[in-house]
Amino acid sequence: MKVKLSSLAVAIAVTAVSSVAWASAVRDEPITPIQPYVSENPAKVQLGKKLFFEPRLSMSGIISCNTCHNLSRGGTDNLATSIGHGWAAGPVNAPTVLNSSLAIAQFWDGRAADLQEQAAGPIQADIEMNMPHTLALDVLNSIPGYQDEFEQVFGSRDITIDMVTAAIAEFEETLVTPNARFDQWLKGDDNAITAYELEGYKIFKDSGCTACHNGEAAGGTSFQRMGIVRAYESTSPVEGRYSITGNDADRFSFKVPTLRNVEYTYPYFHDGQANTLEESVDIMGQIQLGRHYTEEEIDKIVAFLKTLTGDMPQLTLPILPPSSNDTPRPDPFR
Amino acid sequence: MKVKLSSLAVAIAVTAVSSVAWASAVRDEPITPIQPYVSENPAKVQLGKKLFFEPRLSMSGIISCNTCHNLSRGGTDNLATSIGHGWAAGPVNAPTVLNSSLAIAQFWDGRAADLQEQAAGPIQADIEMNMPHTLALDVLNSIPGYQDEFEQVFGSRDITIDMVTAAIAEFEETLVTPNARFDQWLKGDDNAITAYELEGYKIFKDSGCTACHNGEAAGGTSFQRMGIVRAYESTSPVEGRYSITGNDADRFSFKVPTLRNVEYTYPYFHDGQANTLEESVDIMGQIQLGRHYTEEEIDKIVAFLKTLTGDMPQLTLPILPPSSNDTPRPDPFR
Repeated sequence: MKVKLSSLAVAIAVTAVSSVAWASAVRDEPITPIQPYVSENPAKVQLGKKLFFEPRLSMSGIISCNTCHNLSRGGTDNLATSIGHGWAAGPVNAPTVLNSSLAIAQFWDGRAADLQEQAAGPIQADIEMNMPHTLALDVLNSIPGYQDEFEQVFGSRDITIDMVTAAIAEFEETLVTPNARFDQWLKGDDNAITAYELEGYKIFKDSGCTACHNGEAAGGTSFQRMGIVRAYESTSPVEGRYSITGNDADRFSFKVPTLRNVEYTYPYFHDGQANTLEESVDIMGQIQLGRHYTEEEIDKIVAFLKTLTGDMPQLTLPILPPSSNDTPRPDPFR
Repeated sequence: MKVKLSSLAVAIAVTAVSSVAWASAVRDEPITPIQPYVSENPAKVQLGKKLFFEPRLSMSGIISCNTCHNLSRGGTDNLATSIGHGWAAGPVNAPTVLNSSLAIAQFWDGRAADLQEQAAGPIQADIEMNMPHTLALDVLNSIPGYQDEFEQVFGSRDITIDMVTAAIAEFEETLVTPNARFDQWLKGDDNAITAYELEGYKIFKDSGCTACHNGEAAGGTSFQRMGIVRAYESTSPVEGRYSITGNDADRFSFKVPTLRNVEYTYPYFHDGQANTLEESVDIMGQIQLGRHYTEEEIDKIVAFLKTLTGDMPQLTLPILPPSSNDTPRPDPFR
C-alpha cells in the first residue's frame, strides 16, 4: 500500500495556504519532480529488502535481484546484457529498478503489469535465477527467521509466492530518487542548474525528446518504436512488444526507458549497444527525430541529462536469516 | 592504522580504577571477548567499503569481494566452494571475512600474511575475478569519483594496487562482531547463556576443542592438520599448507577456522562438505580428538556454538561512482 506525498500535501493544504503556494511554484514542464514515497508498511519494506538481496531465491545460491539491479550502481548491472545462471547471457539490457514504480508497465516489452508481477519472472527464468517457485518457497518456509517475518507482515507462516513478490514490490516502490538538481530547478530554484544545462534542456524539449521522455521518470509513460525515422541497427533478436501482442505495428516497440540517473545506467538501449550518453543522444536524434545534433548540442543535452541524477536510496545492508538444517541447499550446476 | 579498544582501555585505566575492575571481571577462558575496532581513518574505511562492493574490479563486471564474502550472510557465500568468473568452481570453501583480521594469516593455507596481501589475490585469480591488476587500475584511474576519493585518503590521484588493497584491508579490519551472548557471559553476565549452552561449552572445552579454537575469534590462531587421529576423507585435491611450505608434515594442514557466527557460515570445513553443525562436530570429534560424542553432547555443543553469533556490522550500502566514457568496459566472456 502506498501514500504519495502529493496526496499528503493536498490534505495539509487545507490548513496551510503556503503548501498551495509551493505546489503552484512548480514550473509547467513535460518532466515533473519525483515525489518521495512513504510506505504505510515499513515492516513489509524491510522484508522486501531482504528478499531483494536474497541469493537463496536462485538455484545457484549466488544470484539475487540486486545482482542485475545493483543498488550500488543506479539499480542496474552496467552490462550490455545481464549474466545469469550458468553464466548465461540474457537477451536485453537490465532496466534500472530505480523509479521503476513510475512506469506504466514492467520489462522492456511491458509484459508485466506491475512490479509484483515482474518480480515473479526472473526468479524462475532459466537464464536468470533458474529457481522454480515451489523450490524457492521450500527454501523460505524452512528458515525460521523468514517464517517469523512473514507472519508479522502477512499474518501467516505459510509463505506463498504472492507474499514474496508483494514484499519485493513494496520495497521497490521506495526506490525513487527525488531531489535531482533538475527537480530543484522545476520547483523554482534558478541556480540549481547552470545556463549550459538549461540550454541542453531546451534543445532536448524543443527537438521533441519530451514527447516520449516525460512525466516523473522522464520516460516509462508509453511504448514507442525504436527507429521511427530510420531503422535501428541491432544484432539483438528481440522484437519488443510484438512478442506480446502479435501486432505487426508493435514490432521493435519498447517501453521508453527512464532518463532519471541516466549517467549511472550505461550502457544504453534495450540491447545495451550504446556505451556513452553522447552516442545515445546522437543515435536517438537520428533514428527517432530525423535530426543530426551538432557536437555542441549533444554536449549540452548530456549536461542536462546529468542534472536528472537524484538522491539514491540510503539503504542499510540487510542481514539475512541463516538457513536451517532442513533448508534445501543451492546447486550452481543444476 | 588501527587502535584496538583494549589499548585505549589501558590508557583510560590510568585515571579510572573502574576500568581495571571491568577488565579483571572477564572470565579466564581460552576464548576471549571480541574487542570493537575503531579506525583512525574513517575516510579510508569508506573507500575500502566501496572497493569491497566494486564489481568493476572483476573482468565480468559482476563479481566483487562481497559476492563470495557476502556481508548479508555472515561474510561468506554459503556454497561448498565458490563460483567465480565464467561460472568456474573454486577449490575451497570461502572463509568468512568477519573477524578475519584476528587470524594469524589469510587463506586456508595461510599463504597471505595479512588482509592487504590477501585482497590482491582474488582480483587477478582467473577462476575468481579474473582481472589483471593493471586493468583494474586503468578502470579505477578512469573514474573521477574514485580519483577524488583516493586523493583525499592517500594524497594521490594516481591509484596503485597497494592503495586499493590497503583501503580494502582497512575496511575489513572493521568487520568484527563483538557482543555475542558468549562474550557477555565471558564478561560476567551469568544469564547471557543458558545452562544447556554452558554445558555445551564445558564439553567443548573439556574434550579439547579449545586447544585449537581459542582466542578472540575462537580459531585462526594456528595451523592444524585436518585428520589428526583419523584421516579426513575428502574429494578435494587441496593439500593445505604443504603447497606453501613443501614440508610433508604440513600436508592437509589448514588454518583453524573461526567459530564466530558459525551458525551463519555453513557449509563447513575447507571443502565445504559438512552441511550442518551437528555433522561437523561429530566429524571433528572423531578425526581430531578420537572421540565419539553422543547425540546429546553434540546438541549441547551446537547450542553453545550458536552463542558465538555477535553483532553483525551495520553497513550502509555504498553508492559507487559512475564510470566515465574512458573507462574500460567489462567483458564477461574474456
